[in-house]
Amino acid sequence: MQDYSSKLLENAVNQIAKLPGIGKRTAVRLALYLLKQSEENVCAFASAILAMRNEVFYCTSCHNISDSEQCEICRDLKRNKSLVCVVQDIRDVIAIENTCAYNGVYHVLGGVISPMNGIGVAELNLQSLFERLAQESVEELILALPSTTEGDTTGYYIFKHVQSSEYPIKVTVIARGLSVGDELEYADEITLSRSLLNRIEFEFSIMKK
Amino acid sequence: MQDYSSKLLENAVNQIAKLPGIGKRTAVRLALYLLKQSEENVCAFASAILAMRNEVFYCTSCHNISDSEQCEICRDLKRNKSLVCVVQDIRDVIAIENTCAYNGVYHVLGGVISPMNGIGVAELNLQSLFERLAQESVEELILALPSTTEGDTTGYYIFKHVQSSEYPIKVTVIARGLSVGDELEYADEITLSRSLLNRIEFEFSIMKK
Repeated sequence: MQDYSSKLLENAVNQIAKLPGIGKRTAVRLALYLLKQSEENVCAFASAILAMRNEVFYCTSCHNISDSEQCEICRDLKRNKSLVCVVQDIRDVIAIENTCAYNGVYHVLGGVISPMNGIGVAELNLQSLFERLAQESVEELILALPSTTEGDTTGYYIFKHVQSSEYPIKVTVIARGLSVGDELEYADEITLSRSLLNRIEFEFSIMKK
Repeated sequence: MQDYSSKLLENAVNQIAKLPGIGKRTAVRLALYLLKQSEENVCAFASAILAMRNEVFYCTSCHNISDSEQCEICRDLKRNKSLVCVVQDIRDVIAIENTCAYNGVYHVLGGVISPMNGIGVAELNLQSLFERLAQESVEELILALPSTTEGDTTGYYIFKHVQSSEYPIKVTVIARGLSVGDELEYADEITLSRSLLNRIEFEFSIMKK
């Protein structure tokens, strides 16, 4: 039981402490920080969050976050629409966009198949992906899913569907291997064996850089 | 430059990233967490913060945070008003209250004297402290300030004022020493030498527990 001598402060602290990774102590620190800011700044803080929650759209084709019905990436005429990258989360779109190394479009699943957490095929944006594959002329589907059992299961499910539907679509997976800058001795066995198995021509690796 | 494909998300992330100790990556994580919550929950989050900022009072006598003109602690008739604990921040009041070991009242300075950061005597709630000492029948003033040069300077300033004003007020300082559970070998020299110098009777230390 903490005593804040103010219900208003206590409420704010409890609300902030609900955020993931933020404990009571940090919540108090953040609340007192906000308390010291000007009324205008705190208002801007709260309204930016409310505006995001209430006004944001999810792109009707790729389910990415957007300010309009279709997201900027899907509307971009310079993007290669025949290349679709399947990701788990909006955060993954941001991460890949930051590399500036990808010119195709995305499909955000909203999670991966995980029966333990009650996430099945119906909970994910898989049906809309398969509709896209049937309607649009997709040439390659890149699976950029997490390297976990759940990610692999989801990838396999998508691969099986594409195979059985007999669309002329190539399904690829992003490379798993040693991170750039990593030492071999600290890499785990599975990563190291995968990067040995999936080795590429040296000449080719220089070109890619 | 990050690309969030949504100005609304970008705004929210930028606002969240202004909080102390929260970087861009954490801000994205928190924003996407809030995005997944119900409209009602996000509204409760924002309004708790706004209510705190706009409706909170600062106690007119001790400057602690409060829901009314005088804080709960100052209004409490069971509290010993002749015992005043001087602290830097509201957080320190919360910390001391959580010990349940203090029955006096507080005086929140709002900082410590720090010329390097442009905080002088005028920026702190020192004048109101001296007015309290002149008007109220305070018997003991406990200095619970941080153990830094700035904290010590502030404590010395208050001590000098009380001394020169010739009020019959005892000025005390909270004990500095080894934390409970600490090993001697890991303590720094100053802390160890202070706790040697300010040693107390063994019998007395058992009683206090």
